[in-house]
Amino acid sequence: MDEMDNQFVTSLKENYQIVFQEIGLLEQAFTHSSYVNEHRNMALSDNERLEFLGDAVLELLVSQYLYRKFPEIPEGKLTKLRASMVREDSLAEFARECGFDQYIRLGKGEENSGGRQRNSLLCDLFESFLGALYLDQELEAVNQFLKKVVFPKVDAGAFSHEMDHKTKLQEVLQRAGDVFIDYRLTNEEGPAHERVFWTEVYCDGQLIGRGQGKSKKAAEQDAAANALRQLNE
Amino acid sequence: MDEMDNQFVTSLKENYQIVFQEIGLLEQAFTHSSYVNEHRNMALSDNERLEFLGDAVLELLVSQYLYRKFPEIPEGKLTKLRASMVREDSLAEFARECGFDQYIRLGKGEENSGGRQRNSLLCDLFESFLGALYLDQELEAVNQFLKKVVFPKVDAGAFSHEMDHKTKLQEVLQRAGDVFIDYRLTNEEGPAHERVFWTEVYCDGQLIGRGQGKSKKAAEQDAAANALRQLNE
Repeated sequence: MDEMDNQFVTSLKENYQIVFQEIGLLEQAFTHSSYVNEHRNMALSDNERLEFLGDAVLELLVSQYLYRKFPEIPEGKLTKLRASMVREDSLAEFARECGFDQYIRLGKGEENSGGRQRNSLLCDLFESFLGALYLDQELEAVNQFLKKVVFPKVDAGAFSHEMDHKTKLQEVLQRAGDVFIDYRLTNEEGPAHERVFWTEVYCDGQLIGRGQGKSKKAAEQDAAANALRQLNE
Repeated sequence: MDEMDNQFVTSLKENYQIVFQEIGLLEQAFTHSSYVNEHRNMALSDNERLEFLGDAVLELLVSQYLYRKFPEIPEGKLTKLRASMVREDSLAEFARECGFDQYIRLGKGEENSGGRQRNSLLCDLFESFLGALYLDQELEAVNQFLKKVVFPKVDAGAFSHEMDHKTKLQEVLQRAGDVFIDYRLTNEEGPAHERVFWTEVYCDGQLIGRGQGKSKKAAEQDAAANALRQLNE
């Protein structure tokens, strides 16, 4: 191992309490195919198979996290939220935050064409790291790593543009523990084809927002959006 | 639980040594949304969230199985093979083999329109069962189930049309243990634009097939196909 690698091993230990038993797996995760192609005499393996595995590890752990965190959200919304978390630019950003971009071994051509900053490459790198960690230490170790790097982003609302207002309100209010949220229709007026509905939203019996709309559902979304706005003020 | 369910619980135990601790999870996995819609007074949950989770559980376990079984296959081929294993008609067939189609709770409309035989519905059912099993008993229990139901199909070559001849030959020969397979170029003739290559394939030093083609790679594929043919005679 060269000096750069030692620095990386130390940073993994200090920042994430991760120590690889099989250091070769970590090295493989950080070896791009372009590097292998330029060092054929070294008989290296690139990180693509680890990426294949890591992709599936990530998918399961993110799914499990969302499944447990949002017990009331239907499957369709869970799928959307998962897609936003595991998409290329999200994963590339996680890789950068972990400093992974500094340590990947690239071929010269890839380096010169800016591969080290490329989202697709960094996304693959993040997944191959997860694959290596899974093989080295089983699923729960990867889960612990994601708890430090990925899941807090969800808790901080980084993906909440994927949620509708009612879901987001629920998510925000339940951060501190279980609460009871209910929506009450207070009024409806007008002829059938242009009827308007008024709704109030309550948290543990306390009024936190009012809304209106052309359907009950739209009025509830509006009430939730207003409640969120007031909470953020 | 009614009688049909008891029969199912018994069959799971006898055929797959699976006993659910939380029987509600199993019931939920076998509850289609159409049944929930027709029994609103019962406050049931359908199996869609479990399917979301089970889909990811299956993806990881199949990936891990392929990663370990085929240490030499590159990522692109692993991805193809995985896709063929987890696609709708494959999963629906697994659900039928397990007799799951007999036990799903459907609404009358869904039943009358032939939902019980529909691949998409049975595929979702298979995944939601895996999701329920994962929540009830962790990952390794699902792996054991797949070892009985899904992985033997790969071992028996059910997905080998997805593999090229060289990969398939390797898979067949290594069933009995590690062997050394090598391809030897024995001749090449003709001008550059219509050159022909002849290859022989050896297993532990023994000639098992000959082939020819317009490239070395094509000649090796041909040799592997011929070797497979002779092995099957």
